[in-house]
Amino acid sequence: MGKVIWHGSTQLAPVPAVLVGTGGNGFANNLITVAWVGIVCSDPAMLSISVRPERFSYKALVETGEFTVNIPLASQAAVVDWCGVKSGRDVDKFAEQNLTAAVGSQIQAPLVMECPLNLECKVKEIIKLGSHDMFLAEIVAVQVSEDFLTKSGRLALERNGGILGYAHGHYFNLGKEVGHFGFSVRKKGKFKRPQKSAKA
Amino acid sequence: MGKVIWHGSTQLAPVPAVLVGTGGNGFANNLITVAWVGIVCSDPAMLSISVRPERFSYKALVETGEFTVNIPLASQAAVVDWCGVKSGRDVDKFAEQNLTAAVGSQIQAPLVMECPLNLECKVKEIIKLGSHDMFLAEIVAVQVSEDFLTKSGRLALERNGGILGYAHGHYFNLGKEVGHFGFSVRKKGKFKRPQKSAKA
Repeated sequence: MGKVIWHGSTQLAPVPAVLVGTGGNGFANNLITVAWVGIVCSDPAMLSISVRPERFSYKALVETGEFTVNIPLASQAAVVDWCGVKSGRDVDKFAEQNLTAAVGSQIQAPLVMECPLNLECKVKEIIKLGSHDMFLAEIVAVQVSEDFLTKSGRLALERNGGILGYAHGHYFNLGKEVGHFGFSVRKKGKFKRPQKSAKA
Repeated sequence: MGKVIWHGSTQLAPVPAVLVGTGGNGFANNLITVAWVGIVCSDPAMLSISVRPERFSYKALVETGEFTVNIPLASQAAVVDWCGVKSGRDVDKFAEQNLTAAVGSQIQAPLVMECPLNLECKVKEIIKLGSHDMFLAEIVAVQVSEDFLTKSGRLALERNGGILGYAHGHYFNLGKEVGHFGFSVRKKGKFKRPQKSAKA
């Protein structure tokens, strides 16, 4: 159980790898791949994305104050990677990847229709941190592909191979379900609960 | 490809589910499970965690200005869930779950030795957002279990069943690798690259 100590670095994992959509208000539709994204508040529902000021999307984010977070399937890993490597200065990412843009219900920034889950976000604050500026944003609406809803209305993101995760430069699909919130204190259930004083 | 529109909510996925360790400076060691966590800056390496002010760990976070982020294995899902359901007001989580605490190299907050990866964090700013306060923190050191390092020094988090992910109330392991950063523009490789204008 020995440990090796490294310098501080961005080793959190797994993280989402999402397509952030910008556009509207005079800006052409564009996509940037972002892994530095996380939920920061439940009520109001808020998330943060962090983007380097030298990235092409930065100006649209600042000037429109709007963006979408499009959550991809594992089968879309190559598209996600490509949108992170290429710049909107040089290519029309929607056209090149044959993605369908749709205007949001609350904002003008484009949704990626092929992603099962889309979050419409309005920027509340921009905080300069160093290499990246953090955009704190409220999630003002969510759009879900009908194909990923069960008859009872449950969001079934495990369909079609499941959603994409990212860990230290590698893309993964989500694997096997190993529990659900609260399962460790349920009397019965299909998942293995901890023994009292069980070794983790 | 129809969409259903929902109200804004915290639907980002997958997210990490980590054990945040607090203690030192007069505070007993404690753990809180946090999924509202994300990287916010590469240089300096920074992350955010968001915690409700009514949570028991909140005071220690504010007064010590230090915490650890301990990244669990999927096999530790029950421990992670349990530490999210129980309160440090009532139980000694390290003792009950038979976890080993170690003082950080740069901070006094406790590491969970059984987790393969531990991030030592110093709080830089606290921002009130609503239900949650966001703690912006610098990652000042990283500790890695020797068992998860290859002979060449690569971090091999796929070992022992891999790390834990969380999506909409369900815990998962990371599944199959489906690509690595930059694979979409490599000439050769084991992963499927996008066709020009391929449908995602």
